[in-house]
Amino acid sequence: MKVVIIGGGAGGIPTASNIRKYDDEAEITVITRDNQIAYSPCAIPYVLSHKIHSFDDIVMRTPEDYETKNIKVLTEAEATDIDSDKKIVTYTHEGKEKTIEYDKLVLATGGSPFVPPMKGVDLDGVFKIRTLDDGRAVKEWAENCKSAIVTGAGLIGIEIAFAFKELGLDVTLTEMLPQIVPRSLDPDMANIISKYLEEEGIKISLGQPITELKGEDGKVKSAVFGDGTEVECDMVIMATGVRAELGLAKSIGCECGRWAIRVNDRMATSVPDVFAVGDCVESYDAILRSPTISQLGTTAIRQAKTCAQTICGKRSRFNPVLNSMVSKVGHLEFGAVGLTTTFAQQNRIKTVSEKVEALTRARYYPNAKPMNVKVICDADGTIIGCQIIAEERVAERIDTMTLAITEELTCFDLSNMEFAYAPPVSMVTDPLVLAVEKVSKKFN
Amino acid sequence: MKVVIIGGGAGGIPTASNIRKYDDEAEITVITRDNQIAYSPCAIPYVLSHKIHSFDDIVMRTPEDYETKNIKVLTEAEATDIDSDKKIVTYTHEGKEKTIEYDKLVLATGGSPFVPPMKGVDLDGVFKIRTLDDGRAVKEWAENCKSAIVTGAGLIGIEIAFAFKELGLDVTLTEMLPQIVPRSLDPDMANIISKYLEEEGIKISLGQPITELKGEDGKVKSAVFGDGTEVECDMVIMATGVRAELGLAKSIGCECGRWAIRVNDRMATSVPDVFAVGDCVESYDAILRSPTISQLGTTAIRQAKTCAQTICGKRSRFNPVLNSMVSKVGHLEFGAVGLTTTFAQQNRIKTVSEKVEALTRARYYPNAKPMNVKVICDADGTIIGCQIIAEERVAERIDTMTLAITEELTCFDLSNMEFAYAPPVSMVTDPLVLAVEKVSKKFN
Repeated sequence: MKVVIIGGGAGGIPTASNIRKYDDEAEITVITRDNQIAYSPCAIPYVLSHKIHSFDDIVMRTPEDYETKNIKVLTEAEATDIDSDKKIVTYTHEGKEKTIEYDKLVLATGGSPFVPPMKGVDLDGVFKIRTLDDGRAVKEWAENCKSAIVTGAGLIGIEIAFAFKELGLDVTLTEMLPQIVPRSLDPDMANIISKYLEEEGIKISLGQPITELKGEDGKVKSAVFGDGTEVECDMVIMATGVRAELGLAKSIGCECGRWAIRVNDRMATSVPDVFAVGDCVESYDAILRSPTISQLGTTAIRQAKTCAQTICGKRSRFNPVLNSMVSKVGHLEFGAVGLTTTFAQQNRIKTVSEKVEALTRARYYPNAKPMNVKVICDADGTIIGCQIIAEERVAERIDTMTLAITEELTCFDLSNMEFAYAPPVSMVTDPLVLAVEKVSKKFN
Repeated sequence: MKVVIIGGGAGGIPTASNIRKYDDEAEITVITRDNQIAYSPCAIPYVLSHKIHSFDDIVMRTPEDYETKNIKVLTEAEATDIDSDKKIVTYTHEGKEKTIEYDKLVLATGGSPFVPPMKGVDLDGVFKIRTLDDGRAVKEWAENCKSAIVTGAGLIGIEIAFAFKELGLDVTLTEMLPQIVPRSLDPDMANIISKYLEEEGIKISLGQPITELKGEDGKVKSAVFGDGTEVECDMVIMATGVRAELGLAKSIGCECGRWAIRVNDRMATSVPDVFAVGDCVESYDAILRSPTISQLGTTAIRQAKTCAQTICGKRSRFNPVLNSMVSKVGHLEFGAVGLTTTFAQQNRIKTVSEKVEALTRARYYPNAKPMNVKVICDADGTIIGCQIIAEERVAERIDTMTLAITEELTCFDLSNMEFAYAPPVSMVTDPLVLAVEKVSKKFN
């Protein structure tokens, strides 16, 4: 079996490795534009802030490592054409146009940073962050900067803004919407993080798009906002999201949804023997039961497993997603899973929610830290979302809630659940239980 | 409604508070032998080691606090007789015998430390640890000690042994069974903790009961083991378990199981209008579907809630238990839920298990610590147990597994689950997923 994989990110590379686990014989070729593979883009902010020593540290494997598994990785190669009838991919590599046949083709083309149309985005000092090379360029430029604007207050935007602050830059974080982390958090929870970021010295501008970037000698010098305000800066990071790369998929007639390639739960596209994984595909929302996008590394890795198993003739299903996420900026860890109140209401789901401020340890144990938990239920009490902010122990509680939502538990069910307790590591009644008990009362 | 509660521990006091939440009018009286209430016995080891400043810090509330909620708490009072026909409790208080009528009676009589029959247990310097007074006595005695033996290597035994070591004592931890934490951990996992304790300087003696304590001038001086070995010591802590106090329950004909009072899932005993909660009652094992005991503070608190709701005419059920637990000794956090391999096999359940050593953070992120995870499935792949050891982030993963076991998920189901990821707080593929993936392979 000849497998060609286009894309060397968190979708493409794990697809290759997983196929090799199940099939010793398959001829596997990965074609990627990038010059490095198997690195962790989520770690770029932590290299910028010097928490991780160098970009080399976050490269997990080289193409040579894959050679030893008999997986061929062509870097700095670009797939330019697919003939899905003859099953041939045309690509350029080392200056030459070449072709390769496939039995199974995997599109793991990922996404490109979305840069909103505005004057000045081509100025020097304006960056997107997607690849290691982007990260390196930003790090180098930042060394000669005093101030930076990060636009887009999603996870990556916040993490980079915080990294710049740690480097001593004067940082402004801007978001077109009226709150930070709009996809994952409700405004009341987002405000806790905004307040922390402001206390740490980051300026935050909400509800205003940047309309223009102004420069001097080709270098960015300021950003102009919708209301006319102008903020000076030596660099601008566009963290305004990622758009699926659909060119190749569309060229062979793969059915696409609103945002990305449509796949079934075995990661097959509408074109025979063509599969797709990662940021370029649509997922299915576990609560809304409708298409969504889930551009997370963990999603790509899980899709890669299913894709590889399908290709190797094994039964496997990629389940609908809840987009569980976690991030850490400075001392603050925050995470979320399921729907926000805002998003649920936009989808005409009535919500009942409550918020508690509890502690991460027994009240009397040293270093017990505040933990904010918000739980969102539908009108029947079924849990549909959870958001948590604390200095520690957030991620795993999000995982517990992911399981609770997946299993369609109600707040009443979870109120009765057993939680492990010891004074140094938890409260005798877990913050999650306090939150679901509080929301349960609204149903009495 | 007149409610009398016998016992002021983690079962009795929360029953009183919860009843007050639902019923402003009820006359609630708590009768307790102890001189303090609403304290956290689980915290005693951490006061001994000076992590928590004083025993006063772990007393959450006083009888006066309860007076303000119109709950009468009689301390140093002993219920001596119950007439369940006339619904009258006789008790002694302040040197007098008194009676009190009830409409509903709650037995929260707890348990007494079990001391195995042996010569010398009455010597000075031999302690059990159950109440704050026990804790205070141990703390005082330890100040003049050079060496201590802790017998019984369950959670409390290990925590106290470690506290003594931190105080600079020469400590021997002894366990009759051939491993430590026999109730919650398999030998391979228990050995990881034994090794750590030994590295920290604690001597461990396994598979040998103490047969005799020897003394001098009425003070304990050494312990003699089954094989004749004699170990010198200035004090001995008997951490050999707790036996339910059943005297009052049996005197009125409450049906009892092998270990404790039998209750239904609404916490009612077999005697009309008599309820029971906490260490004196039997629970139901969620996997084995048979009676068990669950002498955990968290169990008592959850039973108290159901008991109060039942008494107040609300629907509530106490679910079968999985005995999820967590502890922290030194840098090591360990937890478990469900059945051990040993216990499952004793109950004729075939098990399939696997163990992984993973990390608590992304491999390249500073301070990523090893995390050992063992997952135990039955012959169909349904998860029936999990044990985790690491320096951080154990408790909440146990909670995730508690939910997985409660929902009867298989290792295959959990392999496909979403886990929240960020490099500073987790691995891109969670250690739990690595463990269930590994065990899944055994079913291929």
